[in-house]
Amino acid sequence: MSLIVQKFGGSSVADAKSVKRVAQRIVDARIAGHDVVVVVSAMGDMTDDLLDLAAAVTDNPEPRELDMLLTAGERISMAVVAMAIRSLGYDARSFTGSQAGMITDAQHGSARIVDVTPGRVKEALAEGAVAIVAGFQGFNRSTGDITTLGRGGSDTSAVALAAALGADVCEIYTDVDGIFTADPRVVANAQKIDRITSEEMLELAASGAKVLYIRAVEYARRHRVTLHVRSSFNNNEGTIVYNPTEGQKVEEPLITGVAADLSEAKITVAGVPDVPGKAAQIFTIVAEANINIDMIVQNVSSAGTGHTDISFTLPKAEGAAALAALTKAESDIGFASLAYDDHIGKLSVVGAGMRSNSGISAKLFTALYEAGVNIDMISTSEIRISVILRDDQVNDALRRVHTAFGLDSQEEAVVHGGTGR
Amino acid sequence: MSLIVQKFGGSSVADAKSVKRVAQRIVDARIAGHDVVVVVSAMGDMTDDLLDLAAAVTDNPEPRELDMLLTAGERISMAVVAMAIRSLGYDARSFTGSQAGMITDAQHGSARIVDVTPGRVKEALAEGAVAIVAGFQGFNRSTGDITTLGRGGSDTSAVALAAALGADVCEIYTDVDGIFTADPRVVANAQKIDRITSEEMLELAASGAKVLYIRAVEYARRHRVTLHVRSSFNNNEGTIVYNPTEGQKVEEPLITGVAADLSEAKITVAGVPDVPGKAAQIFTIVAEANINIDMIVQNVSSAGTGHTDISFTLPKAEGAAALAALTKAESDIGFASLAYDDHIGKLSVVGAGMRSNSGISAKLFTALYEAGVNIDMISTSEIRISVILRDDQVNDALRRVHTAFGLDSQEEAVVHGGTGR
Repeated sequence: MSLIVQKFGGSSVADAKSVKRVAQRIVDARIAGHDVVVVVSAMGDMTDDLLDLAAAVTDNPEPRELDMLLTAGERISMAVVAMAIRSLGYDARSFTGSQAGMITDAQHGSARIVDVTPGRVKEALAEGAVAIVAGFQGFNRSTGDITTLGRGGSDTSAVALAAALGADVCEIYTDVDGIFTADPRVVANAQKIDRITSEEMLELAASGAKVLYIRAVEYARRHRVTLHVRSSFNNNEGTIVYNPTEGQKVEEPLITGVAADLSEAKITVAGVPDVPGKAAQIFTIVAEANINIDMIVQNVSSAGTGHTDISFTLPKAEGAAALAALTKAESDIGFASLAYDDHIGKLSVVGAGMRSNSGISAKLFTALYEAGVNIDMISTSEIRISVILRDDQVNDALRRVHTAFGLDSQEEAVVHGGTGR
Repeated sequence: MSLIVQKFGGSSVADAKSVKRVAQRIVDARIAGHDVVVVVSAMGDMTDDLLDLAAAVTDNPEPRELDMLLTAGERISMAVVAMAIRSLGYDARSFTGSQAGMITDAQHGSARIVDVTPGRVKEALAEGAVAIVAGFQGFNRSTGDITTLGRGGSDTSAVALAAALGADVCEIYTDVDGIFTADPRVVANAQKIDRITSEEMLELAASGAKVLYIRAVEYARRHRVTLHVRSSFNNNEGTIVYNPTEGQKVEEPLITGVAADLSEAKITVAGVPDVPGKAAQIFTIVAEANINIDMIVQNVSSAGTGHTDISFTLPKAEGAAALAALTKAESDIGFASLAYDDHIGKLSVVGAGMRSNSGISAKLFTALYEAGVNIDMISTSEIRISVILRDDQVNDALRRVHTAFGLDSQEEAVVHGGTGR
């Protein structure tokens, strides 16, 4: 017998029929002898509906009240999932984030979990009940207020509970069969990955793979929680995201997967005086505007001019704010011009095997060259290489690179739609 | 400056537009210099929608989970009302029943308030904010669970908060202009009552008047809270429900209002042995089946037979259960037959002036006689006379009695639709 945390996203509990199917799945795990804690997101489009309601009332909803509003979503889904389990003859009790002890900081809309004290969840388990916990929500002790964890929050709730309870596995149920070597909607013969380290998963998630959210993977990595990403629509094994122990012999594929990200834009600050501290000045200004930067490239100084260009990528949504902050500081920095390009894409190749293998970048650049793709920027980590290219070339390049690294399957993957939170 | 508690029902906050109108109304009270605490119900049909969702998942929803589900409704309305107030430039903070200190017993679905500890509400007021409190919901200390107060619960929440905070008045906003001398949908020239004692209001509510719920009026009477029942669609003065102090000279109209109730049925237990203890036996059996009885009539024993008939009225919804309980005890009680009649109606005349005036019943019976109405049962309190008659005669009788007691106005009342909770 083991303790399993199961997380079901919004598309898995979209209506009464789905709720009943999920309840049966939970009961199956009970029948198999496991203790089960369930984390649920809001049903289907509920969160979007609540956001629409807030937008109809005010242009600028107060963050505390927005959290109060949005947390009604999981309250509904957790209560009906608990009811559905009870109607199958099994004990079940629902708990809000606050009742389940999900203690966070006070940052409404993107709170961070600072402690998990799941006393009532443990009690319920001890009494043989399934505990249903609202995902995405928490509670700040000093203000006494309800908070939400931001995008991907329910995944994080599930991982945090799994860590606090010492669960054997945290199952993340979604509408796809697991993590793939590439997005199957783009690369038709992408393969499901059976096992992946959390380190690789983190790089894939940061590179644009959408199935798991970065914060949840980070949490799982830090607290050594094993994840099992699988479909709520079938009983297939999904992808195990694991944390190898120190010295554990891990079979490291050269390349685990490739990913694309079309959500970024590029800003080039041109004609920057090539004197020490200029780059620091620019990125301090950008950081103070709360903008997250991804890749940075500083060109070598044009011979004799004493000036250089600095380019960086950032989320498109933050482009306007970054331009405004830089323009305001134009005379301080002393640059010649600003250029904004939102037709870029990022292609990343991730694999722990890279650490002990040279020649990966050569292979990547060759594949891109043969596809007639120009590389604009390059960034690397120990187990990832990312390149910036034109956005309309990304999908084709992804397929070519997938093939070049021998990731293609013989069969086409089955693709479902939808996203979770 | 005074402290006002304002309660808005579901029809007053049915959509974003209504929410904004309510927010403006609340802000107007702030501008007038008052401290304001607002109690809201769930928006429009939200509660019914949630009940439908529960019914789609299970035939028999667990009461604890049903409360968890339904309380999502007020959470939504209170958050958007708070947002709307803030967008008008005024501070507002929403609180769940639990955050507002509405402590109840553990009876899910019909919990009773046992204590009100509104510390956070007082804090918000002290800081100049409007406090928005979820109606209908509370919190049980020993289980740590969320509860709901049952029908009319939001009225009760508002009155309980007004009592705990020592508010000057508790304004109950609804979709009618106040309390009328009769239901204006039936009696076209019913008049709005300007002032009514809580004792009379209690009798009217118990007699079928729907605007205020009995439990809320009882609470207001016990804790001496002044109510102001008024429309959220205009600025007219509504009806003041007050608690006269001991010895206060109250101008007592002979008759305050008339009310009808078509929700009851009658059971007649015929041929009951006329020996001591039989009535007690019958009503013990009925009480043990959790059935609420209204009126009781025991006929004089038919001469020489040693048997009598006992009739009582009860909510139609409980008729089947009562018949089953009595049938099961047939040999114990030793009655001859059971009759069930669900085509009855109750007509009540209420007025504190009755206490010092005889002749009210004569006037009532005369009016009914002239209308060709047969009276089946009669029951009286100090300030009320109720009669049972055929259901299809109730509306006509109501109009005749309204006229007979001089309650008719010269103008016809304006009628809105809808009900609150």
